[in-house]
Amino acid sequence: MTNPEKKHLDPERAQARRDQVLNAAAICFARSGFHGASMAEISKAAGMSPGHIYNYFDGKDSIIAAFVERDVERIAEKLLRMGQQEDVVQAMLDNVESGVTENLDPKIWSIPLEISAEAARNPKIAALLQDADRRSRQHLRENLVKARLQRGIQTSDAELDGRVEAIIALFEGVSLRSLKHPDLDKKSLIAACHLALKPLLFDE
Amino acid sequence: MTNPEKKHLDPERAQARRDQVLNAAAICFARSGFHGASMAEISKAAGMSPGHIYNYFDGKDSIIAAFVERDVERIAEKLLRMGQQEDVVQAMLDNVESGVTENLDPKIWSIPLEISAEAARNPKIAALLQDADRRSRQHLRENLVKARLQRGIQTSDAELDGRVEAIIALFEGVSLRSLKHPDLDKKSLIAACHLALKPLLFDE
Repeated sequence: MTNPEKKHLDPERAQARRDQVLNAAAICFARSGFHGASMAEISKAAGMSPGHIYNYFDGKDSIIAAFVERDVERIAEKLLRMGQQEDVVQAMLDNVESGVTENLDPKIWSIPLEISAEAARNPKIAALLQDADRRSRQHLRENLVKARLQRGIQTSDAELDGRVEAIIALFEGVSLRSLKHPDLDKKSLIAACHLALKPLLFDE
Repeated sequence: MTNPEKKHLDPERAQARRDQVLNAAAICFARSGFHGASMAEISKAAGMSPGHIYNYFDGKDSIIAAFVERDVERIAEKLLRMGQQEDVVQAMLDNVESGVTENLDPKIWSIPLEISAEAARNPKIAALLQDADRRSRQHLRENLVKARLQRGIQTSDAELDGRVEAIIALFEGVSLRSLKHPDLDKKSLIAACHLALKPLLFDE
């Protein structure tokens, strides 16, 4: 659905309205799942008419796309910051604590988990996730190349790929740990993630 | 719902019928999600009447419980087998290839992913998953203790906990990689998982 009104909205106000819808959608998806949550439910939770919401989002799929985009930006920002440090290996190791802490937080993982489950049966959502993932991988890969060059290590493309995959697997897996073992010992997990990450970053 | 007929079923035939329902449910959950799939849809896919299905399962929650139990048994079997080897560290490293290959297979992760998403909003399902996870952790922990004692290493409880969490995170994270990057290079991922697992198993 295209809507000519979209073009005429004040950008800041439009962003605030979009955020209002996303926050409402997050609550509805958490409560009813992606399938169960209707645009009617989301508009009610947002305190906006369904017609009004369609000024900002074409439907549930485009709300999902906005969540995915938000997540890519959050990750890109962190990775770019680390990549700018003098010692990228150290910056990435220093980030383990905050990365694990963040990934254990249901506020961070519950919507992505819902989106992943939906992606497993919805090729359009899967394509969105896969495109987002490609961009996040690229950022992580650039950091890894920098980190290893700073240690004087040249790395083959295949090897870089494998390391990138394993690093993401570890951090994404942490989120599932929080669901399946909510009272896990965070401090020990952080220490163990350090152990696992180190050889992925710079051991031969 | 309790049903006196349950007690009188031939165990082998009952197991075959239960499997028939689980296979049908797997198809329905994959297609419609846990919320979307009704007992009516499942009974249709299984070619059984809803009343007949209730001889084997009290409802969708008990179907989920059976899936979770199946997964725990699959993991326990693998871990017990590794724990019986002479060199448990080596057995666990040797298992990386088959473990990663298995976890990349949608047949292995799609139902658990659906269940995890449901658990995030359904405390009863969350409790099921958490109990299953506790048992899997225990098996892995026993292997880790054995593996490290074979290398002459005593380990504190907290340290064991952290290592167990990180190992599970890595392997569970691999499944998400298959969703987000279906054409990843499996060989490089396996090599990287080796790198990450080694210090979790036996480095200081």
